[in-house]
Amino acid sequence: MSSERYTPLSASALADACAAALGRLRASTPLVHCLTNHVASGFTANVLLALGASPAMVDVVGEAGPFAGVASGVLVNLGTPSGDYPTAMREAVHAANSAGTPWVLDPVAVGSLPVRTPLAVELAGLRPHIVRGNASEIIAVTGAGAGGRGVDAAASVDAATEAALALAQRIGGVAAVSGPVDLLTDGRSVVRVSGGSDLLTRVTGAGCALGAVMAAFAGTPGPGLVTASAATPDGEAVRVVAGIPGSALIAAVASSVTYAVASERAALRAAGPGTFAACFLDDLAGLRPADLADEPRIVVAA
Amino acid sequence: MSSERYTPLSASALADACAAALGRLRASTPLVHCLTNHVASGFTANVLLALGASPAMVDVVGEAGPFAGVASGVLVNLGTPSGDYPTAMREAVHAANSAGTPWVLDPVAVGSLPVRTPLAVELAGLRPHIVRGNASEIIAVTGAGAGGRGVDAAASVDAATEAALALAQRIGGVAAVSGPVDLLTDGRSVVRVSGGSDLLTRVTGAGCALGAVMAAFAGTPGPGLVTASAATPDGEAVRVVAGIPGSALIAAVASSVTYAVASERAALRAAGPGTFAACFLDDLAGLRPADLADEPRIVVAA
Amino acid sequence: MSSERYTPLSASALADACAAALGRLRASTPLVHCLTNHVASGFTANVLLALGASPAMVDVVGEAGPFAGVASGVLVNLGTPSGDYPTAMREAVHAANSAGTPWVLDPVAVGSLPVRTPLAVELAGLRPHIVRGNASEIIAVTGAGAGGRGVDAAASVDAATEAALALAQRIGGVAAVSGPVDLLTDGRSVVRVSGGSDLLTRVTGAGCALGAVMAAFAGTPGPGLVTASAATPDGEAVRVVAGIPGSALIAAVASSVTYAVASERAALRAAGPGTFAACFLDDLAGLRPADLADEPRIVVAA
Repeated sequence: MSSERYTPLSASALADACAAALGRLRASTPLVHCLTNHVASGFTANVLLALGASPAMVDVVGEAGPFAGVASGVLVNLGTPSGDYPTAMREAVHAANSAGTPWVLDPVAVGSLPVRTPLAVELAGLRPHIVRGNASEIIAVTGAGAGGRGVDAAASVDAATEAALALAQRIGGVAAVSGPVDLLTDGRSVVRVSGGSDLLTRVTGAGCALGAVMAAFAGTPGPGLVTASAATPDGEAVRVVAGIPGSALIAAVASSVTYAVASERAALRAAGPGTFAACFLDDLAGLRPADLADEPRIVVAA
Repeated sequence: MSSERYTPLSASALADACAAALGRLRASTPLVHCLTNHVASGFTANVLLALGASPAMVDVVGEAGPFAGVASGVLVNLGTPSGDYPTAMREAVHAANSAGTPWVLDPVAVGSLPVRTPLAVELAGLRPHIVRGNASEIIAVTGAGAGGRGVDAAASVDAATEAALALAQRIGGVAAVSGPVDLLTDGRSVVRVSGGSDLLTRVTGAGCALGAVMAAFAGTPGPGLVTASAATPDGEAVRVVAGIPGSALIAAVASSVTYAVASERAALRAAGPGTFAACFLDDLAGLRPADLADEPRIVVAA
Repeated sequence: MSSERYTPLSASALADACAAALGRLRASTPLVHCLTNHVASGFTANVLLALGASPAMVDVVGEAGPFAGVASGVLVNLGTPSGDYPTAMREAVHAANSAGTPWVLDPVAVGSLPVRTPLAVELAGLRPHIVRGNASEIIAVTGAGAGGRGVDAAASVDAATEAALALAQRIGGVAAVSGPVDLLTDGRSVVRVSGGSDLLTRVTGAGCALGAVMAAFAGTPGPGLVTASAATPDGEAVRVVAGIPGSALIAAVASSVTYAVASERAALRAAGPGTFAACFLDDLAGLRPADLADEPRIVVAA
């Protein structure tokens, strides 16, 4: 990736790229392999299905690796890393890297917890294409890797800007900070996406599922990509696509815009967090690519 | 079962039997013991509760066996067979067989994955009453058992007919192939059930929960059956009923018709996959036995 | 707690205390650490979020203890105690007791099952602030502890009164028996809460989530309590509050009244158990403190 020529993207170009990415996602039905926590796994699968992706949670040691090798994208979420889950995660990450499959790391609640924090640092060292978390988590992953600095309490998204830039540069990928305004950076451009309903914070797993959406967009073939055919374990034909430099930022931005637009629509119909969750899935399914070409909510600082 | 006299069922007789089965299910509240994956477990339990059955997920080694011995029906779903889950599954299957409790095997994503595929073949050898899966999974279970043949990619339901017949004959039970038209066979009759909403494919765990519904219907006392009383671990009186030859096919057909009717109704009210999932549960609860006496959607080839 | 001066509470005083407790819960956003089963974990988290609490499921050995030390309240639910879950539970309980954090035990399906039953007796001996279950479970925990008596089949709430009183006295806390009329006792007062929709029994995890709500109310600062500040693992500031004698009964009653009021409202809008679950979350979020000051549904026998 060091030989990539850097071209800053305008908000307008990003908005168009988001719309095009959703169209390609729908056309390619990326197979998203999720190693995620048991609290969010059902909702995460439903978010992917609503959006037009194909979820699979193959989290058994000995299977996680082979499956990651045929998946379009992989999510590694550290919400409940009990038993031999860390072993399955390492297996999936190494297989994804060998196959060139993009993968997303979601370092849930890292900071002082003694199992997931070193695991997050270890996995962040294996060059995830995207690391997604709230501000405190992004700071914790970055700081812990730099020498064990503790988390900042109640960190804001803006306070995480420096950490996100450093993390993106270190991994050669994208850091995605979720908050009232999402911040997404590839270590050079800093993109902010505004909007979205507060009700998202009242639905468990909404943040976790956003990481899976990023894996879906990252695993969607870009224009002009070379792809290969393969068969999934359940016998359906899939396309295997190598991640490309630059695509991770578009994937992350498209995911944030997707969430913002669908959640705003869902909030108009919902009477509270329960009906909102159902409406949000409806509105993810109902999104048209043009709905993501929403330039005003994107701000780019190169 | 070799002494059973074979009487092909007409579509009309099957439709009436489905209606009667739902009436008996509601009256007996079968206790369905589910060893299933963590993605689908919540939705599976809600489907059973909506239908009128009583779900229990007792998946701990040392408990899965004793509990299977008092359950009305057992589901063994291979979606996430991590840790000591395979041990709990074997325990439950052996206890179910000892007690004469009907059990359903759902070989999720078997084919090339190296943990679940041999496990599925092993469990299929223990004479499940019903094996439920999509076409590729049914082909994989059958083929692998015959000598390791790989899965056919994107197999259609019709392409699985031969495998389903062979599997049903081998296990002395029913093979249930889910798809746009469901195919259900006891190795002699081939029953097709049409209809149902495509939105079912956008709800995670809908297929897994169908396996649990089959276990509920299989665990529902048939007319004239000898039953015994027992107490569940949580102290509620239950009826213990031995499976009978022939009942498994009716159970599988009744489950497919239940899904088809309830999903079509739900689709009329739903605005997308999120509200559909909620409406589907409503409509399962609202089904009347007569709603299943829907002869035109059943086609029998003896 | 033996030095506490006992003052029986009137229904009127309890109703006012429930209303005040909800107001304080909303203001303090208690962090509720749930070690619960994988069937109910998603719904439990959504119930807590809807109510205004902050859920966290940190169920990894080595993390469950440290996290319990900073949580506001802890739930230990025995629904699926597989793998090293019992170890994580013991860790969390000891840390909660060391920190003075209130914790709730939900002995799901105890009675004859050989793993969870001795575990429940062991944990009940560690002085939970509240034990919540159905009548059979409360009887089983009490009876098994007294010498291995089996469960009574299909026990009614009234039949569990004696066991509940004995259990509350033994643990120096509250026994909460869920049923058509909930019974809650601190070993002296016996409080009954009536009302609530039967549809709650058709939603999986509704009972499990009630235990989490009790942990949220128990972890809500009472009037005049000394509190301390701390940081959660994800960097958010939280208040650490020691449990106080007497508050557990109010927490349990407030939880039962919360469920009764919200479920009755949800049932008015729902078309069945699926839409009911979504509406119930909406109505939990929409509850105002004054809605809990519902004296007629509370009956106290001192």
